[in-house]
Amino acid sequence: VSRILAAVKLGDPRAVRSRSAILAAARSLLDESGPAAVTHQRVAARAGVGRATVYRHWQEPEHLLQEVMAGAPFPFFAELDGPLRTWLRRELRGLADEMAMPGIARIGVTLIHQAQWDEAARTRLDRLMKTIADRLDTAFRAAAARGEVEPLTEPSEITARLVGPVFYRTLVQGSPVSDALLDTLVADLTPRPSC
Amino acid sequence: VSRILAAVKLGDPRAVRSRSAILAAARSLLDESGPAAVTHQRVAARAGVGRATVYRHWQEPEHLLQEVMAGAPFPFFAELDGPLRTWLRRELRGLADEMAMPGIARIGVTLIHQAQWDEAARTRLDRLMKTIADRLDTAFRAAAARGEVEPLTEPSEITARLVGPVFYRTLVQGSPVSDALLDTLVADLTPRPSC
Repeated sequence: VSRILAAVKLGDPRAVRSRSAILAAARSLLDESGPAAVTHQRVAARAGVGRATVYRHWQEPEHLLQEVMAGAPFPFFAELDGPLRTWLRRELRGLADEMAMPGIARIGVTLIHQAQWDEAARTRLDRLMKTIADRLDTAFRAAAARGEVEPLTEPSEITARLVGPVFYRTLVQGSPVSDALLDTLVADLTPRPSC
Repeated sequence: VSRILAAVKLGDPRAVRSRSAILAAARSLLDESGPAAVTHQRVAARAGVGRATVYRHWQEPEHLLQEVMAGAPFPFFAELDGPLRTWLRRELRGLADEMAMPGIARIGVTLIHQAQWDEAARTRLDRLMKTIADRLDTAFRAAAARGEVEPLTEPSEITARLVGPVFYRTLVQGSPVSDALLDTLVADLTPRPSC
């Protein structure tokens, strides 16, 4: 694996070519048929490379999927487009539904798992965490300026309180996230002025 | 692996013996020197079996550690022994500190990871989830009987709201859990009668 990565870094045109062909193949399979379709066999066939080549780059389909996804923008909490509470509620519903898809859950859990050992995965996960915290911070600031809530003091803790239960419910408990739970999370995070 | 498990099921005395010798060795190493000491090599030496035998049973040290831990009672939220809020706060602090230990985080994440593919791991994780939810349910009932809080309607959702953020903060964000975050979690979960 490291030899291949080194070759990519040095720009060995053959390794770079097969790598990007594989990533493009995985991306199109994912787009057409979902995560379950991204197997070593189908990716290799579509990329026009041998199965062994795909294995050498990514030992698990989930690792390949992760890299495909790392190249795409995170599709939740992107831009506040209405009242904060309504927006949070809708984005959390979307995120919970997405994470309930078995293929997606596996990619997420694999990234968290890898991040405990592997620096590159840790960096990827940290970057994602920072993206979410920054987006929530921006949204809360905008809503605070309109008098809807107080601005955040600890954006990354807010993420933990808002997204943590959704992660835990879907990935750890393997249970659906009820609308009632989402209502509670949003209410706890956006307290009305105290009485 | 399956042949070994089948042998254990059928009670092949040699496989049963090496399995329990390995588990006992792992348990004592864990007890003496923490999770990092539980390597294939040290476990094999202490159990008096070959390294290959340990590998055949458990490919990763984390899988072995998981099985050792599955045989032990979960050490948090065991029994309410005072006011609910104080107790929750103390147990959550203990859990967060434990999960911040690298070896422990890895075992936890590995179990969650395995549970996405493997039935036995899923069962183990589900059992742990049920234990935590049942304990919180019992504690909230007792506190409700004393007029401290309302009884729970959805114990497993409460677990997600209470433990989810701690899990997310330690395993996903890789950040320490502040006392302030724990205070907020406990306050959100145990609302005072509304004004």
